[in-house]
Amino acid sequence: MQYTFQELETLRDFYAGQLLNDTVPFWFPRSFDREHGGFLLMRDADGQLLDDDKAVWIQGRATWLLSTLYNTVMPNPEWLEGARLGYEFLINHCFDTDGRMFFHVARNGAPIRKRRYFFSETFAVIAMAAYARATANEQAAQRARDLFGRCIEYATTPGLLEPKFEPTRPARGIGVPMIMLNTAQQLRDTIGDPRCDALIGQWIDEIGTYFVKDDIRCVMEQVAPDGSIIDHIDGRTLNPGHAIEGAWFILHEALHRHHDARLIRLGCKMLDYMWERGWDEEYGGILYFRDVYNRPVQEYWQDMKFWWPHNEAIIATLLASLVTGDPKYARWHKQVHEYSYTHFHDAQNGEWYGYLHRDGSIAQTAKGNLFKGPFHLPRQEWYCMQMLNNYLQKNSVWSGVSHC
Amino acid sequence: MQYTFQELETLRDFYAGQLLNDTVPFWFPRSFDREHGGFLLMRDADGQLLDDDKAVWIQGRATWLLSTLYNTVMPNPEWLEGARLGYEFLINHCFDTDGRMFFHVARNGAPIRKRRYFFSETFAVIAMAAYARATANEQAAQRARDLFGRCIEYATTPGLLEPKFEPTRPARGIGVPMIMLNTAQQLRDTIGDPRCDALIGQWIDEIGTYFVKDDIRCVMEQVAPDGSIIDHIDGRTLNPGHAIEGAWFILHEALHRHHDARLIRLGCKMLDYMWERGWDEEYGGILYFRDVYNRPVQEYWQDMKFWWPHNEAIIATLLASLVTGDPKYARWHKQVHEYSYTHFHDAQNGEWYGYLHRDGSIAQTAKGNLFKGPFHLPRQEWYCMQMLNNYLQKNSVWSGVSHC
Repeated sequence: MQYTFQELETLRDFYAGQLLNDTVPFWFPRSFDREHGGFLLMRDADGQLLDDDKAVWIQGRATWLLSTLYNTVMPNPEWLEGARLGYEFLINHCFDTDGRMFFHVARNGAPIRKRRYFFSETFAVIAMAAYARATANEQAAQRARDLFGRCIEYATTPGLLEPKFEPTRPARGIGVPMIMLNTAQQLRDTIGDPRCDALIGQWIDEIGTYFVKDDIRCVMEQVAPDGSIIDHIDGRTLNPGHAIEGAWFILHEALHRHHDARLIRLGCKMLDYMWERGWDEEYGGILYFRDVYNRPVQEYWQDMKFWWPHNEAIIATLLASLVTGDPKYARWHKQVHEYSYTHFHDAQNGEWYGYLHRDGSIAQTAKGNLFKGPFHLPRQEWYCMQMLNNYLQKNSVWSGVSHC
Repeated sequence: MQYTFQELETLRDFYAGQLLNDTVPFWFPRSFDREHGGFLLMRDADGQLLDDDKAVWIQGRATWLLSTLYNTVMPNPEWLEGARLGYEFLINHCFDTDGRMFFHVARNGAPIRKRRYFFSETFAVIAMAAYARATANEQAAQRARDLFGRCIEYATTPGLLEPKFEPTRPARGIGVPMIMLNTAQQLRDTIGDPRCDALIGQWIDEIGTYFVKDDIRCVMEQVAPDGSIIDHIDGRTLNPGHAIEGAWFILHEALHRHHDARLIRLGCKMLDYMWERGWDEEYGGILYFRDVYNRPVQEYWQDMKFWWPHNEAIIATLLASLVTGDPKYARWHKQVHEYSYTHFHDAQNGEWYGYLHRDGSIAQTAKGNLFKGPFHLPRQEWYCMQMLNNYLQKNSVWSGVSHC
């Protein structure tokens, strides 16, 4: 199938309406913490606060979202106020004395937990960069660039962060090149950074070289340093939603690079391979984990349906459809879009549930917790709205394939 | 209801038959690793090996099981051979140079992962102690006592092990007094240790004082140092199966202490409270996590049914029934026994599946992985068989309540 111009307009209006009338109002302004700064985001389905602790990932992501909406949708002073609360909380309370960031802090910023990973830092980079753009605040921009530099060090200096595993069986994960790729894209799109283009190219090459397996049509989540498959439970575990997120980061880069054909091919095959592995033909939706050889994985909840792989798949399929005109991508987009807005969306209270059983029934009702908050869903609705606006305005530059 | 004498005999024969003809033969001797020592336990439903890595918890637990069967059921030389393979693998490959144990090693013993917790150590204590009893090996007994001494240090010396959380919100968990209580009971029952009786009393007092909440009929999984409830997501999370396991450790101690009435009351109320919180009235079975105030918990898979809480509840309800004669315990025992052997047991291949969706359907088929192996199920079948043998032989000392 192909989407008609009119269908694309309808989709654009749908995403814009969901973003601005359903998703964003669920969170803001009620989550602004005007007393301690930052946001109170751990909320039940109806918005009731479950916990006043603050997950640092989500504080950064919410700051990014509000700044980005301010920068790209409209200069709403309420969004800017929220972005300032988030930015100041991040810089005042979320850094340890060694320059690393915490993972989880109390409402007043007292530290609860710090982890080995540097994802708090990458989300803070995009938050600071988008906030710097919104406020033309050069200090915030410099902080974003400095912290991005530290992330590069963490990503490239073995042993700098405490490892989780002994050195017996070295591995490389797709998570680091993926998060760094997207962080660099955000930095470039907001405040610019001369390091970004070359680094983005390197991280995409790392993904294509080591993780994408054409012979078995698969994107691995981790591999040995030489790219070979580690034939143990953890090494065999695939995360289709994550790889599909990586696919659209690369398709986004392909557009930025004037429809770079190599990157379009890479992004599309990552999407193809992991749609085949992740889409649940029996119940619909995207399965969370799969084993590369279809054996049982370690995680017992592997067949649940989480909200975020669906957000990433909605972006990836729509982007692939617009870039290539291949009718299967419009078909997949329609499938995942319909499954998601039918099963995850809470029509009564707004926003999405996060966690469904395999059969699509709701497993738990929290809208926000240590890992879920205003990020994947509003980013999807925002990105699709922007992408469709852009496409509808100047579709001729998007693809050589007919599309009406 | 009450079980009749004849029904108890039937139950005893059932557990003995399951243990010796279904559960143990699933694992042994095929899991003996005669090349590298230890056991190859990460197996799919049909016994096919999923991974030749070795989880140190499970290596210790399997060694304990084989030694215990040898000590208490019959002197089967095959079990002793397996116990020796396990014991030697533990002492030769599972300790780091700092005296701590690994969590996960490769088939040849090369270390993969070490964790902050000392559960590998507690399972090694019971393995070494049971093996020492089986072989009258004084060196193994001394190793067990020494390692138990180190566990006491880890359990009682703040800061000796790297903490997971910052000191902002100190907490105490029920896991440490529970595991130490059971480790000491095993040590006492196999090789004896003069430290055990007093320590067992202290750990039971810690559980009763800090974690058991009569006003809300609940056993907390963690609390503040003074026993107050930490009103955040993690602090509110209950683990009914775990608390029910603690209940039977305490009932076991009550029997050891000549039917100590205070301990019987404590164990029974822990079982009562957490049966009320954990039993799923809609689908049957025991829910994995609950929130103390019935709010959403952090874990999205909280409503799954795992094998081991059912093993612990089968022991606890049968023990409470025999000790008190209260008909509700026989009723509960019948409920959880029937649910479990209907839903978890794999009649075709033997042993139990580990992970069911809330509705009782199978979520994944592995019989063994990093956390599941030959422990909770065979321990339940062995313990119930022994308990029933003991009761049927001399039931008059068990309870003042009529029971036929």
